[in-house]
Amino acid sequence: MASLNDHYLKLKSGYLFPEIARRVKDFCEQNPAAAKRLIRCGIGDVTEPLPAAVIAALHQAVDEMSKRETFHGYGPEQGYEFLRRAIAQNDYRERGLEIADDEIFVSDGSKCDCGNILDILGHRNRIALMDPVYPVYVDTNVMAGHTGPADESGVYQGLVYLPCTPANGFVPEIPGEKLDIVYLCYPNNPTGAVATREQLTGWVEYALKNRSIILYDAAYEAYISDPRIPHSIYEIPGARECAIEFRSFSKNGGFTGLRCAFTVVPKTLLAGMGNATVLREGARIAGLKVFGGVNAPYLWAQAPNGITSWQAFDRILHEANVVITPGSGFGKNGEGFFRISAYNSRASAEEAARRLPALKW
Amino acid sequence: MASLNDHYLKLKSGYLFPEIARRVKDFCEQNPAAAKRLIRCGIGDVTEPLPAAVIAALHQAVDEMSKRETFHGYGPEQGYEFLRRAIAQNDYRERGLEIADDEIFVSDGSKCDCGNILDILGHRNRIALMDPVYPVYVDTNVMAGHTGPADESGVYQGLVYLPCTPANGFVPEIPGEKLDIVYLCYPNNPTGAVATREQLTGWVEYALKNRSIILYDAAYEAYISDPRIPHSIYEIPGARECAIEFRSFSKNGGFTGLRCAFTVVPKTLLAGMGNATVLREGARIAGLKVFGGVNAPYLWAQAPNGITSWQAFDRILHEANVVITPGSGFGKNGEGFFRISAYNSRASAEEAARRLPALKW
Repeated sequence: MASLNDHYLKLKSGYLFPEIARRVKDFCEQNPAAAKRLIRCGIGDVTEPLPAAVIAALHQAVDEMSKRETFHGYGPEQGYEFLRRAIAQNDYRERGLEIADDEIFVSDGSKCDCGNILDILGHRNRIALMDPVYPVYVDTNVMAGHTGPADESGVYQGLVYLPCTPANGFVPEIPGEKLDIVYLCYPNNPTGAVATREQLTGWVEYALKNRSIILYDAAYEAYISDPRIPHSIYEIPGARECAIEFRSFSKNGGFTGLRCAFTVVPKTLLAGMGNATVLREGARIAGLKVFGGVNAPYLWAQAPNGITSWQAFDRILHEANVVITPGSGFGKNGEGFFRISAYNSRASAEEAARRLPALKW
Repeated sequence: MASLNDHYLKLKSGYLFPEIARRVKDFCEQNPAAAKRLIRCGIGDVTEPLPAAVIAALHQAVDEMSKRETFHGYGPEQGYEFLRRAIAQNDYRERGLEIADDEIFVSDGSKCDCGNILDILGHRNRIALMDPVYPVYVDTNVMAGHTGPADESGVYQGLVYLPCTPANGFVPEIPGEKLDIVYLCYPNNPTGAVATREQLTGWVEYALKNRSIILYDAAYEAYISDPRIPHSIYEIPGARECAIEFRSFSKNGGFTGLRCAFTVVPKTLLAGMGNATVLREGARIAGLKVFGGVNAPYLWAQAPNGITSWQAFDRILHEANVVITPGSGFGKNGEGFFRISAYNSRASAEEAARRLPALKW
């Protein structure tokens, strides 16, 4: 018998905005006179037509699809290169932030990305959210099974709520406990608060120390007029090592319905298993039988063809110029194995992963 | 320390088509002469310009966004009503198939939907796929953690592969074992096989008997020229109770890059916990303390205010006209409880769920 994802049953109510839409629709049907004077300050949708330059570009894009010479079918998964380049150049490099074209991932909405990012983050993280919080961050974690049930006030077991109050300017204090994933949204939806450079620096330092990932929602950065307020988390030193940034054209370009957004994932972002994963893949391609390296910073590889741990050490040192640790050094049962440590720079891990397969055993 | 979804590490190689693209790009760069005569029969992308009617409609849609009177922001989550109605009418009702407008869910691609549907299906299903199989079905299940590792031939532990061979015309035999989710794709990608009405009838009967869900990918139905071959799984009696259909405009409308597709989820589709979920929600709103009803067709409710099982039975019968079973009938420890059975039509379950909260205890 097919079964459903029963984590959905934990959701306290429908997603906020469909519920608002339902109530407004009912109200308007029952109160046609009041419906005519209704002013919508709820959902935060745009109401003004798209700028002329956007309309012209859209028409041009349609025309491209009408001629064989310019027609194109499937686009690249990460977004067209011209668009990734334009975003990286205009939104980052021209502001002095080093973001490469291939660190930009174009999508159909920053909230879609906020939900979809959970697919790659896995299920073992301790997750913190601001409170009050934009519902997408909570509900997607509920649906993914990262929480227990909600209590009567709508607080879900298993999530860490960071209080945002007038007293702290709606920027939460740095927590004393270790958290793996922290959602931050500035300028904030719904409170409209912004975070100063000093406050964001505190969060980046916290994330680097705890090897946490900051999911930074900067969909509203275009509204920042105070030059002291950072537009991007990457204005903070170290953020390239710990933050993913979500950006959108919804509010500044009027793209809500058309859906155009992007996510920045720096190559230097160090999630837990990063180096170990790289090394595991290198060892796999090299034909090595390998254990560990998942949820752990060490890989345990079998020396091929019955050679000893030290014979493997010598071959790898002399031919690949990579230093591993002979398994026999860890006891009798370690003989015939060697350990590869993932504690290294990402560049060194990648280079080691490239060299291992070149060895002919 | 943030951790990643390590199920991704089980993927045997990059997704098929990005890998093809990478190899072709490398080849073309190294062989500029051959690149000029390259003929692409790989990815199945479209190459012809969009039809004039589509181009005109796209221009009109862009113009709507250029004027305040016709501008629109966020669309409805399930797709614009005009589009859902047109699809239900033209693709189903005009072909004699009863599909309601609100059973159509517009999306950005049938393969996206094939992956996303896993979010609501949960993690406890026994999943069967055709072999050979379109990689999206496999890889999305691997990423969602529904499989063990792959063996050397790329076969993943935990998935059931249904052999498709010239001998069975690439339509798998009905399995002897119970399977919860079965992916079927006709006309088939990659084998190009079609399934007859008799063969699909066998699968629908199998699914109804085992309460399985068929995920029916009919993205290529427009290619069917033989009038005996079904275009939709809903041509088979009973399919509304056990099948979800994925359809696309990619190949018949040339929409690959633009992304337009839809999924049909009939309201009569009975996934495991459907009725129980409805009844649980009703009991919850009624303020009843309720157990069970998840992974089980029965709910076990506590009679309020210390009344007996039979007192609860009488109240519910007389005031809500709903028949439940007094818990005391199941033994001493059942006293003070009552059982609500989910074995019923969905309509009756919904009506009972509406009546329960009206009871004033």
